[in-house]
Amino acid sequence: MALIVQKYGGTSVANPERIRNVARRVARYKAMGHQIVVVVSAMSGETNKLIALAKEVMAEPDPRELDVMISTGEQVTIGMTALALMELGIKAKSYTGTQVKILTDDSHTKARILDIDDHNIKQDLNDGYVCVVAGFQGVDEHGNITTLGRGGSDTTGVALAAALKADECQIYTDVDGVYTTDPRVVPEARRLDKITFEEMLELASQGSKVLQIRSVEFAGKYKVKLRVLSSFEDEGDGTLITFEEDDSSIKNKDSEMEDPIISGIAFNRDEAKIIVLGVPDKPGIAYQILGPIADANIDVDMIIQNTGADGTTDFTFTVHKNEMNKALAVLRDKVQGHIKAREISGDDKIAKVSVVGIGMRSHVGIASQMFRTLAEEGINIQMISTSEIKIAVVIDEKYMELAVRVLHKAFELEEA
Amino acid sequence: MALIVQKYGGTSVANPERIRNVARRVARYKAMGHQIVVVVSAMSGETNKLIALAKEVMAEPDPRELDVMISTGEQVTIGMTALALMELGIKAKSYTGTQVKILTDDSHTKARILDIDDHNIKQDLNDGYVCVVAGFQGVDEHGNITTLGRGGSDTTGVALAAALKADECQIYTDVDGVYTTDPRVVPEARRLDKITFEEMLELASQGSKVLQIRSVEFAGKYKVKLRVLSSFEDEGDGTLITFEEDDSSIKNKDSEMEDPIISGIAFNRDEAKIIVLGVPDKPGIAYQILGPIADANIDVDMIIQNTGADGTTDFTFTVHKNEMNKALAVLRDKVQGHIKAREISGDDKIAKVSVVGIGMRSHVGIASQMFRTLAEEGINIQMISTSEIKIAVVIDEKYMELAVRVLHKAFELEEA
Repeated sequence: MALIVQKYGGTSVANPERIRNVARRVARYKAMGHQIVVVVSAMSGETNKLIALAKEVMAEPDPRELDVMISTGEQVTIGMTALALMELGIKAKSYTGTQVKILTDDSHTKARILDIDDHNIKQDLNDGYVCVVAGFQGVDEHGNITTLGRGGSDTTGVALAAALKADECQIYTDVDGVYTTDPRVVPEARRLDKITFEEMLELASQGSKVLQIRSVEFAGKYKVKLRVLSSFEDEGDGTLITFEEDDSSIKNKDSEMEDPIISGIAFNRDEAKIIVLGVPDKPGIAYQILGPIADANIDVDMIIQNTGADGTTDFTFTVHKNEMNKALAVLRDKVQGHIKAREISGDDKIAKVSVVGIGMRSHVGIASQMFRTLAEEGINIQMISTSEIKIAVVIDEKYMELAVRVLHKAFELEEA
Repeated sequence: MALIVQKYGGTSVANPERIRNVARRVARYKAMGHQIVVVVSAMSGETNKLIALAKEVMAEPDPRELDVMISTGEQVTIGMTALALMELGIKAKSYTGTQVKILTDDSHTKARILDIDDHNIKQDLNDGYVCVVAGFQGVDEHGNITTLGRGGSDTTGVALAAALKADECQIYTDVDGVYTTDPRVVPEARRLDKITFEEMLELASQGSKVLQIRSVEFAGKYKVKLRVLSSFEDEGDGTLITFEEDDSSIKNKDSEMEDPIISGIAFNRDEAKIIVLGVPDKPGIAYQILGPIADANIDVDMIIQNTGADGTTDFTFTVHKNEMNKALAVLRDKVQGHIKAREISGDDKIAKVSVVGIGMRSHVGIASQMFRTLAEEGINIQMISTSEIKIAVVIDEKYMELAVRVLHKAFELEEA
């Protein structure tokens, strides 16, 4: 008997028929003797519908009230999923984030989980119930309803799995696993049987969109065994996300083969570039630029600083496209005069393309092969950022698909 | 400065435009210096939509999970109403039943309010907020979401007014007050400037449907000053519901006129008649019949018992139409053999018509005039029930409109 957390996204619970499918799958796992916690998202489209309603009465909706409204999407789904399970004769009980309670900070619309009270769920599991928990939502210390932001249902699933010390967290989605890249861009993309947490982290953060990045961080931190599966197929084991250090995970059917050097190509066109030119090259300058950005609650991804010859430096970083104007306003209001920057500008016509692979740590030449491949297609590189297991470049948005396809081919990631 | 609770029903908040209207009305009261608590229902149609969704996955939905789902209707409206107020520059904050907290028993889908915690709302009112509270919902002692049943938003409004010791509870609806009878049946029906609680109680319970009966009971019990107004008109004072004993309420503009004998004609076709024939006429028989009905949580309205000459008695009572079959099953399973009843049958093709008026206490002849009027139209009376301020008869459903019209005319209730 295992304790399994299963998370179903919006497309998997899009209508009553699909919810009945979810119930049938849960019933099969229950019949095997497992304890099951189900985490569900809102029916697809519901969250956007609620946001649109909010905007009809207030152009820029107050975040606290927006959370009150959009959290109802998952609340409807937990009720329906519990009912569909009961219709199959399975004891089931739904939980809102408040009822669990999933304690978060008070950053409405992008709250972070602080603690999960596992008492009631454990009790119900031991009494034979399937617990159906609303993803994406929590409650702050004052009882205000919070939401975790887009994709937050994955985070709820992983955090619950961690809190309950579940044997596995299964993320059901509309794809049947993690691919070397998005099959919509490269039809030859191949499903990976396993991938390390670190690679997954890079792939998700670079925009492969199978899992939300925060959930992968959470899984890594709490050593939650994570598996991505399709909710539309009953066959297949999906992609297991492993810890490299964990021998039991590594020694699966692929372990006799040498790990591939590159796992996949990730891409992302959600970012915008902010350029701060001609800043005096003094200690503390990065903090003076990014401190106010962080204070404005704007997430920063890539950060690059080049020192010039004239005693000034150029500072470039990327933020989410939606926050570019806010970031520029912060810099012009609070930073530009202070640090005496010559010019501050933004560019949201960019894309980020990354080559990801745990194997590249021991192989030289990956970077040069990547740069050569892009050069051969005449694609100019605007920014480069590297980590132990990835090389990311920022390029003109219009070349993104081309770059992904030629890199996928150059690193021989096609379906065998 | 007064503390006013304003309750808006489903048609008053049916869409964003109407919610903006509600916000503008609240703003006007706020500008007069009043403290305002707003109680809102779900947008009209939403609750039925959610019930339909529930039934798609479970034919007879589990009540706990149904409450989880349908309570989202009001949760969306409180968020939208708070946002619409903020858009007008008014500080506003929404509250779910859980957040207030409106403590109820655990009778899902028809819970009763046990206690209201007024601490947070009072604090927010004193800080200048308009508090927007979800009607119709509460929370039991274990944190389960409950609903108060249809029309329960009125009860929430009155109960909050009682808990907060509000100066007035205003019920906004799609009619502009309480009428002598339903204007859709009798176009000459007249709006009453005031009506006593007792009359209102009879009119509401008999199906005038302006206010939900439980809210009127609540208002009477806690001496809440209740006013029914139209949410679609800015003019008019609606109908004030008074305590007969309360001189300050009675001495309004109409007080120089003699109170009319009859206030109105109520009607109701939601009931069914259950007949238990040939029961041995012994002490305790009424309890033996109605005890199991009460245990099954079925509400009973009229009860009539006639003793026959042969030592047996006939026992007749009315229940909601939806519960007739359940009541019959209970009687046949648990009662019939036990009490040796000759026959048990039900009839749901009935209607109840009542003449209501505080004035009839001191006037003889109301009953005879009522019965004569019906007889002149050839309408047979199946059951009669009287109280100090009403006479109710059960007749064949098909004569209902006719009965209401002729009684309205006979008692001279037309528009002056």
